[in-house]
Amino acid sequence: AGPLAFILGPCQMESRDHALEMAAAIAEITAATGQRAVFKASYDKANRTSLSGARGIGMARAMEVFAEIKEKHGFAVLTDVHEAAHCAPVAEVCDILQIPAFLCRQTDLLIAAAQTGRVVNVKKGQFLAPWDMKNVAAKITGSGNPNLLLTERGVSFGYNTLVTDFRALPIMAETGAPVIFDATHSVQQPGGQGGSTGGQREFVPVLARAAVAVGVAGVFIETHDDPDRAPSDGPNMVPLSELGALLTSLAAIDALVKGRI
Amino acid sequence: AGPLAFILGPCQMESRDHALEMAAAIAEITAATGQRAVFKASYDKANRTSLSGARGIGMARAMEVFAEIKEKHGFAVLTDVHEAAHCAPVAEVCDILQIPAFLCRQTDLLIAAAQTGRVVNVKKGQFLAPWDMKNVAAKITGSGNPNLLLTERGVSFGYNTLVTDFRALPIMAETGAPVIFDATHSVQQPGGQGGSTGGQREFVPVLARAAVAVGVAGVFIETHDDPDRAPSDGPNMVPLSELGALLTSLAAIDALVKGRI
Amino acid sequence: AGPLAFILGPCQMESRDHALEMAAAIAEITAATGQRAVFKASYDKANRTSLSGARGIGMARAMEVFAEIKEKHGFAVLTDVHEAAHCAPVAEVCDILQIPAFLCRQTDLLIAAAQTGRVVNVKKGQFLAPWDMKNVAAKITGSGNPNLLLTERGVSFGYNTLVTDFRALPIMAETGAPVIFDATHSVQQPGGQGGSTGGQREFVPVLARAAVAVGVAGVFIETHDDPDRAPSDGPNMVPLSELGALLTSLAAIDALVKGRI
Amino acid sequence: AGPLAFILGPCQMESRDHALEMAAAIAEITAATGQRAVFKASYDKANRTSLSGARGIGMARAMEVFAEIKEKHGFAVLTDVHEAAHCAPVAEVCDILQIPAFLCRQTDLLIAAAQTGRVVNVKKGQFLAPWDMKNVAAKITGSGNPNLLLTERGVSFGYNTLVTDFRALPIMAETGAPVIFDATHSVQQPGGQGGSTGGQREFVPVLARAAVAVGVAGVFIETHDDPDRAPSDGPNMVPLSELGALLTSLAAIDALVKGRI
Repeated sequence: AGPLAFILGPCQMESRDHALEMAAAIAEITAATGQRAVFKASYDKANRTSLSGARGIGMARAMEVFAEIKEKHGFAVLTDVHEAAHCAPVAEVCDILQIPAFLCRQTDLLIAAAQTGRVVNVKKGQFLAPWDMKNVAAKITGSGNPNLLLTERGVSFGYNTLVTDFRALPIMAETGAPVIFDATHSVQQPGGQGGSTGGQREFVPVLARAAVAVGVAGVFIETHDDPDRAPSDGPNMVPLSELGALLTSLAAIDALVKGRI
Repeated sequence: AGPLAFILGPCQMESRDHALEMAAAIAEITAATGQRAVFKASYDKANRTSLSGARGIGMARAMEVFAEIKEKHGFAVLTDVHEAAHCAPVAEVCDILQIPAFLCRQTDLLIAAAQTGRVVNVKKGQFLAPWDMKNVAAKITGSGNPNLLLTERGVSFGYNTLVTDFRALPIMAETGAPVIFDATHSVQQPGGQGGSTGGQREFVPVLARAAVAVGVAGVFIETHDDPDRAPSDGPNMVPLSELGALLTSLAAIDALVKGRI
Repeated sequence: AGPLAFILGPCQMESRDHALEMAAAIAEITAATGQRAVFKASYDKANRTSLSGARGIGMARAMEVFAEIKEKHGFAVLTDVHEAAHCAPVAEVCDILQIPAFLCRQTDLLIAAAQTGRVVNVKKGQFLAPWDMKNVAAKITGSGNPNLLLTERGVSFGYNTLVTDFRALPIMAETGAPVIFDATHSVQQPGGQGGSTGGQREFVPVLARAAVAVGVAGVFIETHDDPDRAPSDGPNMVPLSELGALLTSLAAIDALVKGRI
Repeated sequence: AGPLAFILGPCQMESRDHALEMAAAIAEITAATGQRAVFKASYDKANRTSLSGARGIGMARAMEVFAEIKEKHGFAVLTDVHEAAHCAPVAEVCDILQIPAFLCRQTDLLIAAAQTGRVVNVKKGQFLAPWDMKNVAAKITGSGNPNLLLTERGVSFGYNTLVTDFRALPIMAETGAPVIFDATHSVQQPGGQGGSTGGQREFVPVLARAAVAVGVAGVFIETHDDPDRAPSDGPNMVPLSELGALLTSLAAIDALVKGRI
C-alpha cells in the first residue's frame, strides 16, 4: 500500500479569494510536511439543514477557481456532485467526483459520475452497512469505470449522533477500492444544533489516528482559517493552525502500520 | 381529526395492465369497507440496491396510466419524484408528490416539489431525528406551499434494520402537518438480502395498529396481487387478499381513538 | 386472551405511610374503572445512577407493608429482586418476583427466583434482542417454574435514549409467556440528566396505546401523587390524577383488539 | 503515560491444568516480546446465554490456581466478581477485581469491590454512554478506593451487534482513571448464534490497533490454545499462536503515539 494521501480543504468554496488563500496555505503546510494532498471544496451545499443556510458560489464560477488552483499548486481537486447533469461539466476540471452519503444509492447519479471516467469517491450512507457498499461499488465499476474510492463517514447511532465502526474499513477494502476515512463528517452531530448541524472538532485527531492505525489509503479533513465563522461545518473543521501537526502525526502512524518504519 | 386515509398501491408501476388491475382491486376493497384511499405507484425506482434491479415503466407512460386511473376510479394519486426537473410534469397529473426518505434534505428537490402547489409528502430520512423534520417542513412551507404531509418510515437501528419510534408521530405532528405512517417501508430490512432489500411482511399489521392507536392522519401500505413475484419490496408488501381485513381493523381502532365510537 | 391487567404503583416504597396512601388511591381508581391491578413498589433501588440516590426502605420493612396492602386491598403485589438470597424471603409475601433488565442474564438470580414457585416477571435487557429472551425464559421454565411473564421496556438506541421496538411484543409472545409492556421505563432517558436518569412522561400514554393495540397481557405504569418530588423515576411517572383516564382509554383499545367490542 | 499493559488469559478457568498451561504460554510469549502482562480468567460465567453453558470451576478452586500462577510467574491476576459476597475472598488472592459490564451500576457490588482496597476494573455497560461512567467511577472512589480502571467493551448497536465508539476512550480518561480497551468482547455478537454468543475474531487486531493509536493504558485480550473448542467466547478469542505478533505490533504503535520513538 502506498503512503497516506490527504484530501484537504474548506467545506464550501465561499469565494474565489478564500479558496485561493486556503489552497495556498494547504500547499505550504503539505510541502513543509512532505505530504500528498488533494484539494477539496463544495460549490453547492444542496442539503443544508435549513433553507437559510448558505450554499456556496455555484458550479460555473467554482470550476474556474478549481482550474486556477490546479494550475497554481499542481493539486488534484475534488468536489461533490448532487445531480446527474452536473457530472460532465464538473469532470472537465475536477479529478475526483464525490458522491454525497445521502445520495450513495441514487443510481442515475452514480452512473453519470462513472461515465465521466474520472475517479469517483462514494461516501457510505449513514444508513448503510459496510458490506452493502459492494452493491454501490458495482454500480460504478459495472458502468465501466474502475477508478473508485469508498469513504467512511460514520453511521447513524440514535438521534443526532454518528458513530464510526472501524470494522467498516477492512470490510469496504474487500471490494478492492482504496478506502478513505472522512474525519470531519464522522464527528458531525446531524441536526444537533436545532437549525444547523453540530460537530465535535476535538475528536477529529482521535478518530483519524484510529483509522490510520487500522489502515487506510487516505484521510479526508476539512480545514478552515477561521472555523467558528465558516458558513457550514464549522464545528467540525480543523483550524489551519493545527493542520500541520495533525498530518505529521498521522503520517508517522501510517508509515509504522504499512511497514515503512 | 378526520377519519383515517389510506395510501395504497404496488411498489412499482410494473405495466399499464398491472396498475389498472391493482387500482380496480383496491377500488373494490375500499368501496366494500367504506375507506378513503389514495392510489400510489412508483414510475422509477431510482435507488435500487443493485444495478440489475428493475426500475419501472418511466415517467411519461406512468402519467398516462395515472390519468386513466384517476378518471376511472376517482382516486387521488401519489408518486415519488427523485429529480427537481420531474416535479412539474408529474404535478400535471398527480395529486401528491412524494419525496423519498434518502432525499428529504435535498433542497432543490423540495423547493421544486413545493412550487408545483400540489400536496407534498416528505418521508423522514432513516438518518434523521423526528424533531429535525421541522427544518424539512419549513423548506416546503417557506416556499409558499402549505400542503404538506410528513411520513414516518423507520429509523436506522444498527445494520440492515429499521426500528419505528412511535414518539416520532406526535413530535412530527407538532409542525401542524398531517402525519402518515408508512407500514411497508418501516418493516424493510435494508440491503438485508445481499443484493436486494428484505422485509418482514408479518409485522405490517402490528406496526400499523400501533400507529393508528397513537393517532395518525393516514397509513401507507403497499399491496400486490402476488408479492413474492413483485420486482421490488415484495417481502414487505401485503397480499391483496389480506388487505380488506387489515383496513377494517385499522379503521376501527382509528374510530375509537378519535372518539367516534 | 384475557382482559388487560395493570401493574401499578410508585417506583420506590418510600415509607409505610406513602405506600399505603398510594395503594388506597390505586384501589379507588381501579375500582371506579373496573380494572384489575397488581400493586408494585421497589424496596431497594440497587442500581441508581449515583451513590447519593435514595434506595428505599429495605426488604424486611417492605415485606410487612406489602402484607398489609395485600390484606387491606386484595391486591397481588410485585417487587423486584437483585440478589439470589433475597428471592426466598420476598416470595413469602410477594406474588410476583421481578428481575430487573440489567440482571436478566444473571443465571443464579433467575434460578433462585424460579425456585420460589412464584410468578417471575423478567424484564428484557436494554442490550438484548427480543428473540434472545427465549434463552432467558428457558432459564426459568427449565428450573421447573412455568409461571413466567416477560416485559418489554425499551432497547438501547444511541446514548441516553431508549426506543421501543413493538415487533418485540409478538416475538416474545412466541415463548408462550404473557407479555407486559412497561410504559414507564420505556420512556426513560438513562443517565440523561448527568447525575440521574431523565424521562419523558408525556410519551407514556403514546407508547402504552401502541402496545395495547399490538396486543399485550398487561401494562406496567409507575404512578405517584407528586412525581416531581419522587426520589426516583419522577420524570417518567404518571401523576395519580391522570391515571384513571389513562387506564380507561387503554382498556377500551384492549377490548377492541381482543374482540370483546 | 507508561507503556501499554496487557491483560491476557482464557475466558474461563476451565481446569487447573489448562490454566497453568495458558499462564506458562503467556509468560513465555510476553517474556519474548518484553511486554507487561496481567493474567485473567473467570471462575464462574454467571450470565451465559443459556442454562446449559459451562460456568467454570468455581471460586475456591480458582483462587488456589491463581495463587499458584502468581507464585510461579510473578503475574498480577485479574478475575471478575458477580456478587458482593465474593469480593472479600477473591481479594485475598487477586490483584484486580473486575466488574462485568451488565453489573456496572449495581451499587452494592461496586462498594464491596471498592472496600477490598484492590484495584477495581469496571467495564462500561453496553447500554451506557461514556460520560455516564463518571457516576460509576464515583461509586468506587467515593467508597475510599482510588485504584480504579475503566474498560471499554463496545456499546449496543441494533440487535446482536456491538460497536466501539473510540471517542469513549478520551471521554472516560477525563475521570483520571487509566482506560483499558477490551478487544475481545468488543467483537462479540451477543446472542448472535441463537443459543450462544458469537464473535468476530478477525477484528480483534483491527480494533486493538485503533484503540492503541487513540491512546490507552492497556489492552484486554482473551486468548486460548484452541479457541474453537473453548467452552465460551471461542469465536472471539485470539489463538495463542497469533498472540506474540499482535502484542508486538500494538506495543510499537503505543511507543509511537506516547512519544517514545
